[in-house]
Amino acid sequence: MPDSKTVVKSGSEKSISPAVIKRLPRYYRYLGDLLKNNVVRISSKELSQRMNVTASQIRQDLNNFGGFGQQGYGYNVEYLYNEMGKILGLDKTNNIIIVGAGNLGQALANNQDFDSNGFKIIGLFDVNPRLIGMTVRGVEVYDIDMLETFLKEHEVMIAALTLPKSKATKVAEQLVDLGIKALWNFAPVDLHFPEEILVENVHLAESIMTLSYRIHSHNQ
Amino acid sequence: MPDSKTVVKSGSEKSISPAVIKRLPRYYRYLGDLLKNNVVRISSKELSQRMNVTASQIRQDLNNFGGFGQQGYGYNVEYLYNEMGKILGLDKTNNIIIVGAGNLGQALANNQDFDSNGFKIIGLFDVNPRLIGMTVRGVEVYDIDMLETFLKEHEVMIAALTLPKSKATKVAEQLVDLGIKALWNFAPVDLHFPEEILVENVHLAESIMTLSYRIHSHNQ
Repeated sequence: MPDSKTVVKSGSEKSISPAVIKRLPRYYRYLGDLLKNNVVRISSKELSQRMNVTASQIRQDLNNFGGFGQQGYGYNVEYLYNEMGKILGLDKTNNIIIVGAGNLGQALANNQDFDSNGFKIIGLFDVNPRLIGMTVRGVEVYDIDMLETFLKEHEVMIAALTLPKSKATKVAEQLVDLGIKALWNFAPVDLHFPEEILVENVHLAESIMTLSYRIHSHNQ
Repeated sequence: MPDSKTVVKSGSEKSISPAVIKRLPRYYRYLGDLLKNNVVRISSKELSQRMNVTASQIRQDLNNFGGFGQQGYGYNVEYLYNEMGKILGLDKTNNIIIVGAGNLGQALANNQDFDSNGFKIIGLFDVNPRLIGMTVRGVEVYDIDMLETFLKEHEVMIAALTLPKSKATKVAEQLVDLGIKALWNFAPVDLHFPEEILVENVHLAESIMTLSYRIHSHNQ
């Protein structure tokens, strides 16, 4: 297993801040919408107005990856969309498994946004005999005991964890032992792994509590 | 409708940064876990080790709300948990409606974490006749045409939007027209409202793209 500290990265990507990285998918979404509306090119000023960020931020963000704009022309929408997709790794097929085939797991499996972005859900896993054997948009729900065999036979980039808090940590450890390097965690628990294991959390309870805070501090 | 700029806020809450606010639910979660394990008090050092943040950050974050710690004693877990709950508005009942009763809407309605934190889902809404009339954990799915009547009869704090991108903006505008002040938006679209309308986004596609970026920039 490579130590992430010694992984050779390209010079341009080494120092990119998490804040910039978090903004990239939003650029990609806006560019996709422009492309759908047959917009061929766009100035950083116009893009900034649509996205409600400053034109200078857009230029700075994109300069992390080499720029892409031309003075007096702006950005070529299709080119920038494709380049942004490559930066995000969306030009590759990212196979995903979903561990936990309840409503949330099924909601992810049913989400067609993922397909069009190179994410391919290839299996769901659960302990519940009533769920095992059913299919969600053509993807089968397997017995969680099949994980090891499945992972030997398939190259899986990402495991989504849509299971109860009480089970998430143990299953995550099992997945990492079986070679999974990236976890998309929906359980309300923090997973602790060496830094070469990538964890992206979607903490729904924390999101709504933040909203509740804003509501009630607003009303005071 | 009050203008948010003129809303009187308590002095202590006026200047709290979004970064601090985002960390509050995580404190609340850790304190809840400690409480369940019958921990009576905890030092900021020990809490910081568990949470993997610095003790000084914990003290600084909590000082925004008046501190709560005692020199040489640490924090009383139950007291801090309850105070944190009040700060987050969880001591009040926050009625929620979910607009979009597909898998994701149903997953939210089925999530028991929300109940225990003062969030009460009181209705789901959809356009799909096959969903209208069914119940999810005892909560009925209503015809979306019933929204106006329902909102006249119930005090709703938050509307969750779990519907397709193509419909989200229009429905959000309708909800705001009907008096909703806080939107929990799961649709992959940015909603634009005056700042007194609070919007908290959960952009799942952006979350997984961020993970994909990290995977592929790691592997280079």
